[in-house]
Amino acid sequence: MDVAMIDDQMLPLGDLAKTYLDRGLYFGDGVYEVIRSYDGHIFALDEHLARFERSLREIQINTVSISEIRQKVVAAVERSGFPNAKVYFHITRGSEARDHLPSPGLVPNFLMTVSELHDKPEIKQKGIAVSTQPDWRWKRCDIKSLNLLPNILARIEAQKTGASEAILVGDDGTITEGAGSAFFAIDGKEKAILTRPLGHEILPSITRMMIMQIARNAGLTVAERALTPAQAARCDELFIAITTKDVVPVTQFNGKPVGSGQCGECTRRLITEFSNFVRQKEKTGNTA
Amino acid sequence: MDVAMIDDQMLPLGDLAKTYLDRGLYFGDGVYEVIRSYDGHIFALDEHLARFERSLREIQINTVSISEIRQKVVAAVERSGFPNAKVYFHITRGSEARDHLPSPGLVPNFLMTVSELHDKPEIKQKGIAVSTQPDWRWKRCDIKSLNLLPNILARIEAQKTGASEAILVGDDGTITEGAGSAFFAIDGKEKAILTRPLGHEILPSITRMMIMQIARNAGLTVAERALTPAQAARCDELFIAITTKDVVPVTQFNGKPVGSGQCGECTRRLITEFSNFVRQKEKTGNTA
Repeated sequence: MDVAMIDDQMLPLGDLAKTYLDRGLYFGDGVYEVIRSYDGHIFALDEHLARFERSLREIQINTVSISEIRQKVVAAVERSGFPNAKVYFHITRGSEARDHLPSPGLVPNFLMTVSELHDKPEIKQKGIAVSTQPDWRWKRCDIKSLNLLPNILARIEAQKTGASEAILVGDDGTITEGAGSAFFAIDGKEKAILTRPLGHEILPSITRMMIMQIARNAGLTVAERALTPAQAARCDELFIAITTKDVVPVTQFNGKPVGSGQCGECTRRLITEFSNFVRQKEKTGNTA
Repeated sequence: MDVAMIDDQMLPLGDLAKTYLDRGLYFGDGVYEVIRSYDGHIFALDEHLARFERSLREIQINTVSISEIRQKVVAAVERSGFPNAKVYFHITRGSEARDHLPSPGLVPNFLMTVSELHDKPEIKQKGIAVSTQPDWRWKRCDIKSLNLLPNILARIEAQKTGASEAILVGDDGTITEGAGSAFFAIDGKEKAILTRPLGHEILPSITRMMIMQIARNAGLTVAERALTPAQAARCDELFIAITTKDVVPVTQFNGKPVGSGQCGECTRRLITEFSNFVRQKEKTGNTA
């Protein structure tokens, strides 16, 4: 008879719960999003849902209703009661006996978690340390997929150097992005923000897009170009962008202080402007 | 309160079963093996366990007892009663609330399935069709990890061309391996078997290793070098190697017949020699 074993427990394969047959578990065959709310307002929901829809399409999961997902996100955030909530959700291609080729008509699985975000203002004061790590990821990092092992390994290696984020460096010697964030540098003389152009090597980060818009509104120049670690280390300011924390100053890069070793002037301004932008979005009701 | 949602069902996050918190599901943070038995004898168990141990080490999961896994595999195959069994097992880093960085002391999850293999002799007569697809995988394909989305997507694309396996082609224009198999070509004049040398771009396939040994014993030359699709298409014979089916002739490559369009002479000989090798291993008791 077909047999399964979970940890030390043997059982008939037919008794395995559906979650043990999830293609997400066997193959990472799914895509995800992380969204947050500020003061009870879900931020950039449209943009995240549009990206999610694109990710689904790119991996050829074509039977998901985005409007149903929107309803679920809104309902779960409301139920949580958290003014500052972190929402994670994913869709996998479905559950069935393990086979690389999925069966036609497989029903996708949806999973979501909503938990409270505890913003840490001190991180925006002190900044974080980062270290560069080789970018081992696949060639379609523009798809927000569940294949995140290289990101995890880079983060583990970064942690060993005392850094809280890994900045990934591709084979051509240029920085792609953070293991879980977008990466930015600031040329203080030119008042220019530098970040890598979009492509298959990086995620089309929503926060990155917002920051570029905010920076332009604030009269800063935005230049999309890739930097080497040496070029980044010489920049006046560095920061990362991530949905759950928006703008986070990088004050140490590969063990050395960035600029003055404090959060720089332009980064501080972007933090303030981002905060204003969030409040403005709340007022204009451009939220879910 | 913390909220979770599974498909349409909302529940407190604390009520989520451990499987929904598996890092295998969120990140593909785990490694796996597939082993088979022939006539009641588990084939190449030592070799598969050695590779599994290496995969675990490479992703820094250091608390797994390989001898315990060996016992579990042997017990489950015995329980199944299948003379020709397919064994799949994986270890993931463990279950906890989703965070890229794992907690120290996390306990790994083990999952195994044993099902019956139905060998199809006709596949070794007729051979299979394959088509080339871009290799989108990460840079450590020598680790047998759960990050298999690029393999799945390649297989889906191959299926659209009527092929049952995708032969992956790297950025340098050379074939790496199949999406779920090792790839071999035969130069009939030189009686030489060609396959890509080991490296980070391909899995150190057990079947590949055995075939190379068998081929040398049979007086064939083995040359480890990478081929372009055009070079492969001009070869006299092609075949793939995979644990569950060992040697499988490739009789159609990108829509065109390979050699005569039938299973070639050298491939047929390798199929026979592999079968002899399996029976010899059974007799000498070099099995679990």
